[in-house]
Amino acid sequence: MKLLRINHLGIATPGLDEAMARMARLFDMGSDHTEAVPEQKVATAFFPVGESTLEFLESTDPEGPIGKFLAKRGPGIHHVCFEVDDIDAAVAGLLAKGVRMIDQAPRNGAHGCRVAFIHPAETGGVLMELSQQG
Amino acid sequence: MKLLRINHLGIATPGLDEAMARMARLFDMGSDHTEAVPEQKVATAFFPVGESTLEFLESTDPEGPIGKFLAKRGPGIHHVCFEVDDIDAAVAGLLAKGVRMIDQAPRNGAHGCRVAFIHPAETGGVLMELSQQG
Repeated sequence: MKLLRINHLGIATPGLDEAMARMARLFDMGSDHTEAVPEQKVATAFFPVGESTLEFLESTDPEGPIGKFLAKRGPGIHHVCFEVDDIDAAVAGLLAKGVRMIDQAPRNGAHGCRVAFIHPAETGGVLMELSQQG
Repeated sequence: MKLLRINHLGIATPGLDEAMARMARLFDMGSDHTEAVPEQKVATAFFPVGESTLEFLESTDPEGPIGKFLAKRGPGIHHVCFEVDDIDAAVAGLLAKGVRMIDQAPRNGAHGCRVAFIHPAETGGVLMELSQQG
């Protein structure tokens, strides 16, 4: 498996309006895309930076993954997503090594991607997502 | 100011040996560079990913910034560094807007870069560094 690039950084925020105001104030940047992802209980706003994207995540349900993260740790970087060219082979290879995965098989993510999360116990506390473009 | 790319992600780790073993196990990746940075009280190991780098940070002093971070929050992503083309203009522009900075002026960083940190109170809990290549 080769990590091709940082696809995105997921950043937990109490509110997208506040996050967008901060990005405008600091960097004169606007979001190029916002999207609700009900199955993950978040609303998202995207800011491209080079070959990567900053993905701000607002919780829409305190029981969702970002709601729980915000309650426990507060706002900040939630996960890093790496692009790979063959996610089926990547996940199969990790499972064959005995690596603990949150997702035992790739699932559908945003933008037609297929994604899988590695368990943070394997990564030294960093939540890592793998993604293959659709 | 334009954010050109994610220059690196700084990741706090209890030990570089452990971090390097994890990267080898998960992704068959070796570090292309390790470096002690005594003035920041860290030892570092770098893993290139696309146009970015993962920079693992081991504390060499519990009173240093990474030592304090590890004691408070545990291992994980410590900061994100964005490349800019003119860091003097970037810092001057932020200060002119009243943005709170950790560094009031650019200072020397690793690899001959000039860097400045924005105060996390301005960024929604994400520690952000700006860097201009040397």
